[in-house]
Amino acid sequence: MSVVAEVAGTLTRLRAEVSALHAHLPAYGLVVWTAGNVSARVPGHDLMVIKPSGVHYAELTPENMVVCDLDGRVVEGEHAPSSDTEAQAYVYRKMPEVGGVVHTHSPYAVAWAARAEPIPCVTTMCADEFGGPIPVGPFAMIGDDSIGRGIVETLRGSRSPAVLMQNHGVFSIGPTAESAVKAAVMCEDVARTVHLAQQLGRPVPIEQASVDRLFDRYQNVYGQR
Amino acid sequence: MSVVAEVAGTLTRLRAEVSALHAHLPAYGLVVWTAGNVSARVPGHDLMVIKPSGVHYAELTPENMVVCDLDGRVVEGEHAPSSDTEAQAYVYRKMPEVGGVVHTHSPYAVAWAARAEPIPCVTTMCADEFGGPIPVGPFAMIGDDSIGRGIVETLRGSRSPAVLMQNHGVFSIGPTAESAVKAAVMCEDVARTVHLAQQLGRPVPIEQASVDRLFDRYQNVYGQR
Amino acid sequence: MSVVAEVAGTLTRLRAEVSALHAHLPAYGLVVWTAGNVSARVPGHDLMVIKPSGVHYAELTPENMVVCDLDGRVVEGEHAPSSDTEAQAYVYRKMPEVGGVVHTHSPYAVAWAARAEPIPCVTTMCADEFGGPIPVGPFAMIGDDSIGRGIVETLRGSRSPAVLMQNHGVFSIGPTAESAVKAAVMCEDVARTVHLAQQLGRPVPIEQASVDRLFDRYQNVYGQR
Amino acid sequence: MSVVAEVAGTLTRLRAEVSALHAHLPAYGLVVWTAGNVSARVPGHDLMVIKPSGVHYAELTPENMVVCDLDGRVVEGEHAPSSDTEAQAYVYRKMPEVGGVVHTHSPYAVAWAARAEPIPCVTTMCADEFGGPIPVGPFAMIGDDSIGRGIVETLRGSRSPAVLMQNHGVFSIGPTAESAVKAAVMCEDVARTVHLAQQLGRPVPIEQASVDRLFDRYQNVYGQR
Repeated sequence: MSVVAEVAGTLTRLRAEVSALHAHLPAYGLVVWTAGNVSARVPGHDLMVIKPSGVHYAELTPENMVVCDLDGRVVEGEHAPSSDTEAQAYVYRKMPEVGGVVHTHSPYAVAWAARAEPIPCVTTMCADEFGGPIPVGPFAMIGDDSIGRGIVETLRGSRSPAVLMQNHGVFSIGPTAESAVKAAVMCEDVARTVHLAQQLGRPVPIEQASVDRLFDRYQNVYGQR
Repeated sequence: MSVVAEVAGTLTRLRAEVSALHAHLPAYGLVVWTAGNVSARVPGHDLMVIKPSGVHYAELTPENMVVCDLDGRVVEGEHAPSSDTEAQAYVYRKMPEVGGVVHTHSPYAVAWAARAEPIPCVTTMCADEFGGPIPVGPFAMIGDDSIGRGIVETLRGSRSPAVLMQNHGVFSIGPTAESAVKAAVMCEDVARTVHLAQQLGRPVPIEQASVDRLFDRYQNVYGQR
Repeated sequence: MSVVAEVAGTLTRLRAEVSALHAHLPAYGLVVWTAGNVSARVPGHDLMVIKPSGVHYAELTPENMVVCDLDGRVVEGEHAPSSDTEAQAYVYRKMPEVGGVVHTHSPYAVAWAARAEPIPCVTTMCADEFGGPIPVGPFAMIGDDSIGRGIVETLRGSRSPAVLMQNHGVFSIGPTAESAVKAAVMCEDVARTVHLAQQLGRPVPIEQASVDRLFDRYQNVYGQR
Repeated sequence: MSVVAEVAGTLTRLRAEVSALHAHLPAYGLVVWTAGNVSARVPGHDLMVIKPSGVHYAELTPENMVVCDLDGRVVEGEHAPSSDTEAQAYVYRKMPEVGGVVHTHSPYAVAWAARAEPIPCVTTMCADEFGGPIPVGPFAMIGDDSIGRGIVETLRGSRSPAVLMQNHGVFSIGPTAESAVKAAVMCEDVARTVHLAQQLGRPVPIEQASVDRLFDRYQNVYGQR
């Protein structure tokens, strides 16, 4: 029995989940046209489910999601996978705790990325979700491991689930694809709010001890348990 | 007969009302993901109805609203209540005239809050609804009465039904939950308009006597009587 | 037979038209909550059809529109009319060529109004629709003829169908209610575009002769004839 | 048999395609009211399909699209064609590789156009789609070949499929009408992102060699083949 047959039930669930999660990207203004994607790791297997390349969000279905191995080769699916597959596969190979990856070009976040400027942690939402500033990763060309390496080197050992890749866009991670989508949504919201705050003056800093307490509480108390 | 049974009809109505009012929050861009909430006091009882924590707006129903006492303890409901329950319960305990409380992280308002800068009253809409500048409350940590105290100390004796909690977000109040939602909507609109006005120069002040007349008229003449 | 009975057919049509036109206001982001309105003159009679005060856009119907005389007194309808009825009635009394009036607090336009700064004519769209800068009217209190006088004194003899009332909002006019709505939509679009242009430098002026030619052509050639 | 009869099947397809593509314009905020349009060349014939002038996007149907020759004269259709027909016909006459043209007044792009300032290429998305800065064309009056000439002189020999016509708006081109719509969408996204980036500092430039590699890869590898 092939690996794919073995995980058929899991794939059916993840195809539906990844397809549906893409709806958040245009709804929150994180993407235009087809320029952004969500992927999920297939737990216990060296596989991932990802968006097909260049397909409109309104046309995504569980069936046209693409299953790739963690070298980015198509294992199941009739479409070419996202052009970000190599970068996301690299993240899954190197960060076993990551279950989902999201890529966007959300405008306020990319504005910070174009200046190679991390977003300072001056709101409680930023402390809650990112535990400090949202960091900037290197300028990296598409086509080999450069983007993946830049993401991993920036996020490994950081509290932040999102990185602003210089001149490029946002990559966010999480234990699940949904948590990575949430981080992408929060990243743009923080990027916009701090942008607006800095336009008319200087935001008041939040003490590190308060950032630490907010991050700890939000990660451990918020939501349904 | 328990207190809850006694007010069963009122709770049915308030669960439906509070659930439905949440739709304004994403519609007006006041919140992302699950980060904001509405609550209502149960008139004549030390009870409140509030959003469950971490649940998406599209999934809210009258049934999954949570009923808490005014110490923030769950009295009825299967979900954990909003992490802002303690703050809102404090407001209901200390301000008996308040029938509804709303919390958002709307971006233009939070930009002012991050700079700890009150919004000056330079539009007739601000005079109508807020009767003067929109004030800033202290930086306060979540987890005890600090946020509630900051809201009450700022709004008690103020005409404004909204406070910008420093580095955090907006809390708004009103005699009903709907009026608190309206104040949250107006707060973001005023925050945005005055932000835009200040970007390219200095707004013209409105004389205090005119602010007073506008506030008085709007509070007493506008709408259906 | 009363005046209202005589024009019953016209009123039925105008109630439907005015009610439906309101949908453009929230759709284009020109209003929040209930803060803006559309009215239409009843041709050949000293009557107007206007929004009821404080009613949500989603709840407007042909039936709850209010018919007033041109002194602002209710002639037909069960609701109190918009609090802007006096101002709009004044416009209809003094400018017989006006068939529709719209009032909004659209944010970019109000930002210019808060600075009492006319919007310079630096785009062809502004030349087409407004024939020059969009002018500023005086600061005027609600409650008597002051707003109406300010609108009429600013727009009489101007090519512009819209005025930015200082610290307040936009009033636009046209031969029909639809044309006044169009002017309100265009006013916010021009206000935003020129705001954005000025944020990063100086727009290039358009020569007066070109403004004149664009205005003339747009008024006489554009659209279906 | 007339030319129109000969291409009846193609016209049926293009009428439906051009009508449907217009939905992207309001959805992405590229237009207000009726101020923007899409056209497509009829392959192998000196004909084009274009929006009727002054008709609302919600009212567009395959049937009310207008077929014109490449001098802008109506060949089939009951409506007057877009007032931009002459400009677009000129583009089709002079650039045989162009199969679709789009015109918008999208606000961030027009802000650059009002300053006559090209958009620098500081994001990978701009390199991918535009292969360098987005150029500015001359100020040109409507009513003769001036706009068409300005578009062609700016885009001929440029990698960019979009031009910012000074003080006016965006014209974008592509091998198909859909690709021209995509270029218009991407142009506004890039215009906004770089606007935001410049508001708070200086974007980091991207080396020309990297721009070249990104453009080449995106044009030849992205999407489904």
